[in-house]
Amino acid sequence: MHVNNETGVIQDIAAVGERCNAHGVALHVDAAQSLGRLVIDVQAMNIALLSLSAHKIGGPKGIGALYVRPRTGLAAQLHGGGQQRGLRSGTLATHQIAGFGAAAAHVAAIRDSEQKRLAVLREHLADALAGIDGVVRNGAPAHTAAAFLNVSVAGVHGDALLMGLTAGTPALAVSSGAACSAAKGQSSYVLRAMGRTPRQAGASIRFTLGVSTTLAQVEAAANRFIDEVMRLRRIADAA
Amino acid sequence: MHVNNETGVIQDIAAVGERCNAHGVALHVDAAQSLGRLVIDVQAMNIALLSLSAHKIGGPKGIGALYVRPRTGLAAQLHGGGQQRGLRSGTLATHQIAGFGAAAAHVAAIRDSEQKRLAVLREHLADALAGIDGVVRNGAPAHTAAAFLNVSVAGVHGDALLMGLTAGTPALAVSSGAACSAAKGQSSYVLRAMGRTPRQAGASIRFTLGVSTTLAQVEAAANRFIDEVMRLRRIADAA
Repeated sequence: MHVNNETGVIQDIAAVGERCNAHGVALHVDAAQSLGRLVIDVQAMNIALLSLSAHKIGGPKGIGALYVRPRTGLAAQLHGGGQQRGLRSGTLATHQIAGFGAAAAHVAAIRDSEQKRLAVLREHLADALAGIDGVVRNGAPAHTAAAFLNVSVAGVHGDALLMGLTAGTPALAVSSGAACSAAKGQSSYVLRAMGRTPRQAGASIRFTLGVSTTLAQVEAAANRFIDEVMRLRRIADAA
Repeated sequence: MHVNNETGVIQDIAAVGERCNAHGVALHVDAAQSLGRLVIDVQAMNIALLSLSAHKIGGPKGIGALYVRPRTGLAAQLHGGGQQRGLRSGTLATHQIAGFGAAAAHVAAIRDSEQKRLAVLREHLADALAGIDGVVRNGAPAHTAAAFLNVSVAGVHGDALLMGLTAGTPALAVSSGAACSAAKGQSSYVLRAMGRTPRQAGASIRFTLGVSTTLAQVEAAANRFIDEVMRLRRIADAA
């Protein structure tokens, strides 16, 4: 992953690519979270395969793209009519492709200014959350994509916090980890690998900012978060 | 295939299903061409797996459906977040699903009346084409879905006929076989299996009628087809 989907932490793909290249290894990068946020240069980074996802940049769900460096020797996973040089058979979804293309052009055009704007909003949010004790940021800010803020909160139960934040007023669209693992009921393996305890990892909240996010929303989210943490701590203290 | 994609010929899936059931074989039916045209009863037909495609019924490209009979022991082809009970991981494309659903509801509502209307138009087209010598229908009309008419034409070169029909005025949206095999440059294996010579199979045209097809269009198509065949035959005679 170029940018981790839970924490926003940026991996040094150029360094990984150089190492892979030196050993003749084809590097496959999941850039779903970095598209529109960071510079991706498949040549300079020695990337053989690059996965992209349209709905992560405001494009339609149900379409992605795979960059394949020439002579990468890739076997088809889907078979049929031989479309896309035999690599992915199936009738091409024209409207999905057009939508992905338009979204990609848009995020490319606004990338630099938008990332600067989000970095300011993100730090504003982080500063507000730091106003209460026991909130720890996951991921070094300097190495985290501007849209992401992931925090662990001491003294509250993770499930209660998530439920309180997503069901209350104003409801926040936050998650404790990846949507992909939401059904598994386990705390984030990413946060545990970063040294958090299972309890800390379980009581973690991931905020993601986007093009439609405003300063007023960030402030409302921070206040809502702080109120909820305080409420849960009062309940825990009373128990 | 419940309905063949080139000829429209209907297979007796109930009979196949009964045979499969008697031998404990899971029957997988490609119903891309029969959805909205014929009755599909997975219980009565002993169908274990049924493939459907949205864009064949006016829904969006890029989405299909697979009916899976309970306890059919199916292995996932795509892996990831475990969506759709682990059988097809990936973020669900909400707008595509909604579009497919709306299209399916629509074709189900108009199915019977529309098939009757198309059968009349199709026979009108077939009668008109029969007005010139050397036109043979592929597929028995009584066993062919109403939307389809596939004919072989004697005395013309297949590529020239296809090019003439699709490039002329009015241009016809016809094909010589399946879009999936257009790039392969071979005549239809379906028509050859039905006893046509490679030359006949190569000089075959597939007409498909749909909800937007009118009697005026059918008549224009028939006239255009007849004119083109006559023109090509005159060229061949002169050579």
